[in-house]
Amino acid sequence: MKVCKFGGSSVADEHQIRKILNIINNDSERKYIVVSAPGKRFKDDVKVTDMFITLIEAILNASNYDEIIEQILNRYKQIEDGLEVNHSLISHFNDVIHVYIKQYKNNPDRLTDALKSCGEDFNAQLIANYNNEQGIKTTYLSPGDIELYVSDEPGNAIVLNESYERINKKLNHIEGKVIIPGFFGINKSGDVNTFSRGGSDITGAIIASSMNCSVYENFTDVSGIFSANPNVVNNPASILQLTYEEMRELSYAGFNVFHDEALLPVYRSNIPVNIKNTNEPDHPGTLITTTRTSTGVVGVSCDKGFVSINMKKYLMNREIGFTRRLLSILEDLNISYEHMPSGIDDISVILRAHQLHNKEEILKNRIIQELHVDALSIEKNIAVLMIVGLGMKTLVGTANKATEAFKNENINLKMINQGSSEISMMFGIEENDADKATRAVYKAYFNTVNEK
Amino acid sequence: MKVCKFGGSSVADEHQIRKILNIINNDSERKYIVVSAPGKRFKDDVKVTDMFITLIEAILNASNYDEIIEQILNRYKQIEDGLEVNHSLISHFNDVIHVYIKQYKNNPDRLTDALKSCGEDFNAQLIANYNNEQGIKTTYLSPGDIELYVSDEPGNAIVLNESYERINKKLNHIEGKVIIPGFFGINKSGDVNTFSRGGSDITGAIIASSMNCSVYENFTDVSGIFSANPNVVNNPASILQLTYEEMRELSYAGFNVFHDEALLPVYRSNIPVNIKNTNEPDHPGTLITTTRTSTGVVGVSCDKGFVSINMKKYLMNREIGFTRRLLSILEDLNISYEHMPSGIDDISVILRAHQLHNKEEILKNRIIQELHVDALSIEKNIAVLMIVGLGMKTLVGTANKATEAFKNENINLKMINQGSSEISMMFGIEENDADKATRAVYKAYFNTVNEK
Repeated sequence: MKVCKFGGSSVADEHQIRKILNIINNDSERKYIVVSAPGKRFKDDVKVTDMFITLIEAILNASNYDEIIEQILNRYKQIEDGLEVNHSLISHFNDVIHVYIKQYKNNPDRLTDALKSCGEDFNAQLIANYNNEQGIKTTYLSPGDIELYVSDEPGNAIVLNESYERINKKLNHIEGKVIIPGFFGINKSGDVNTFSRGGSDITGAIIASSMNCSVYENFTDVSGIFSANPNVVNNPASILQLTYEEMRELSYAGFNVFHDEALLPVYRSNIPVNIKNTNEPDHPGTLITTTRTSTGVVGVSCDKGFVSINMKKYLMNREIGFTRRLLSILEDLNISYEHMPSGIDDISVILRAHQLHNKEEILKNRIIQELHVDALSIEKNIAVLMIVGLGMKTLVGTANKATEAFKNENINLKMINQGSSEISMMFGIEENDADKATRAVYKAYFNTVNEK
Repeated sequence: MKVCKFGGSSVADEHQIRKILNIINNDSERKYIVVSAPGKRFKDDVKVTDMFITLIEAILNASNYDEIIEQILNRYKQIEDGLEVNHSLISHFNDVIHVYIKQYKNNPDRLTDALKSCGEDFNAQLIANYNNEQGIKTTYLSPGDIELYVSDEPGNAIVLNESYERINKKLNHIEGKVIIPGFFGINKSGDVNTFSRGGSDITGAIIASSMNCSVYENFTDVSGIFSANPNVVNNPASILQLTYEEMRELSYAGFNVFHDEALLPVYRSNIPVNIKNTNEPDHPGTLITTTRTSTGVVGVSCDKGFVSINMKKYLMNREIGFTRRLLSILEDLNISYEHMPSGIDDISVILRAHQLHNKEEILKNRIIQELHVDALSIEKNIAVLMIVGLGMKTLVGTANKATEAFKNENINLKMINQGSSEISMMFGIEENDADKATRAVYKAYFNTVNEK
């Protein structure tokens, strides 16, 4: 049995919804379906969730918002019309919106989460309704119906551990297809609490883990994960299979496939995730598993916007507690760092540039005054390039392939970090070299590349 | 004006002492001379300091020690005879030894430090006495005479900050040559306290800094520092000039030129150190300075006996305080680590193998129980190879030269750490590959190598 999640572009209009229902109805294993709110139909289109955010702002600013509600309902109406449904839900949706506004008008947090959840919720109802009308037994179930309990943190809810068993009990006996809206759960009082943005992936992973399904199919508008950024490398290969860890390493430096924490429930339950394309459902896509038997480089990613704080102090490595005191200063200033490579008498802290915002001077002063370093410098505009793949650590010459590619392109390496991870190598380079470096390394490992 | 320090082999017998006095007397700039105890004259010879240690053990075990004293005095007698001194100091030395034994027989710490200091102290007196007899005005001054005050930590004394000015005042007006025994100072009550072993280098550095000399000449039995271990690489080049930082990096991985902390006083005072050979005094040796104008690789060092503790945890880099808690566990167990390279969801702690002695199980248990890691492994028998030289960080292709050398020798790289230090690259390899790797890297950077 499979759990399927469909992203915003896969449920953006009647054509896309027909596609996903074909996908679902043609495979009896595809039983539990998590859907997003309607996304963009074309480049400059507005996502329904963003329309709800505009509505929320208007309400909180006491502006007139009737027209915004009309626009939102019109999106769903267009879908219903396109699908030629017999029984329209639009007036029910209108009622729900107004009930929420009345109920929560003095409680901005609750109002925001309740209205934001409507995008997914209405879409799930609409899709279930239409599929039933087509003669396929389909049940819409809200997070409340299935007892998907979350912490009471509007906009940033976390699933409660008890939910997995509760959901299993609730869903176990349901016949036919089940459509569940993504992106939110309810707290123990029944109030809607949304996950952080992109949280439909989280809902899918929770359902997949609860039902211990054979695979969690995650449908988007690309045929799996590319081995490099297609905006930089022309026609990069798709990755057929990779592990959770490999995916984490790739996402770190710029691959925005998943909300990082979204997959934790399926990772823990050892359930594979299949990233597939709604518009090309027969493409195998990318399978994410806990292990894979083959080894080799799967992808090259590169992200900009890093900063390195470099410290030198004669006899530093003899000084007990130096690193701990440095960490305490960072923690005091609420600065989170990425890496901390150290030499004999020197240490660097690599962090995302935004972490230093408004804090650079105070950090420098505290390091100088409290750690008495001999030298302190801050290097900006650093890009981090990652080469990811199982078995890298035990392969002779893996590093050489990369350093040769850099040398041939005359790229200066600011940093090499290899060995902490068995499945990746990390290189620090100048931001200006990022695209050139990505193409060079991709070519070195995948043998072919065209400039973009 | 120069401060000269002569190591044990440079003052081991009358021939060597004639050599060092030639060196001193032929250069009027060489004024303040720090001497060690007589060292080995041939491979299986016993150093005088080790004879004193045997004496101390005999006294503390209440064994008969008369013969040991006789052997010690005989070493000095042989030197006096060889030098044909007019006025012998042997009976004075005999008196001193017996005074110390009587005074400190119930205080093992004081007894140990007092007797250990005699090796240097007697040699300084003997050399000053002989040089005076040769018609060259020479003054022996003890650490007490020059107010070289140290902390009251027998065997591990640290110089007090006030000493520098006191020493300057005491030495400033002395005419002729001054001979000072190395290795010890006195506490404020006048008790002898020795530095940690090899501490004559420390005495020399303290005098050099106190007198703000133009150069601190450190005479040994090799003509400077080699660019690689001569037991591994045949005829490695001598290093003409390197910086303090470069020397620190080289010493870290196996170059035992100096006691690490010995040079701190001259480093702080910006005084160059010249490592020279008593047996080849015209050789320029190696000059250690705070900066150097040229850039490039100066040396390759490699040390064995490292261990890597590797931890993996899904979403580790999202977990605030993980590293700090890991550091606390290490601190609790009194384990000091060398490096802590980190990936996205993994971190390694590199440490010297002896740090894990008797602590491996408890460390593993605490990491598993307190940090809830997904995987923990300990990798042993790791060697760390360092390539050291100013300007490495800004040079394109520096890393590639090394990785290519490793690849060609079929050496697997467990770890690369480049970028934290501007002047070195660090590689983790198997201990078995250490010599092969050193030769390969030496050849890559110095162009020529013969197997040894």
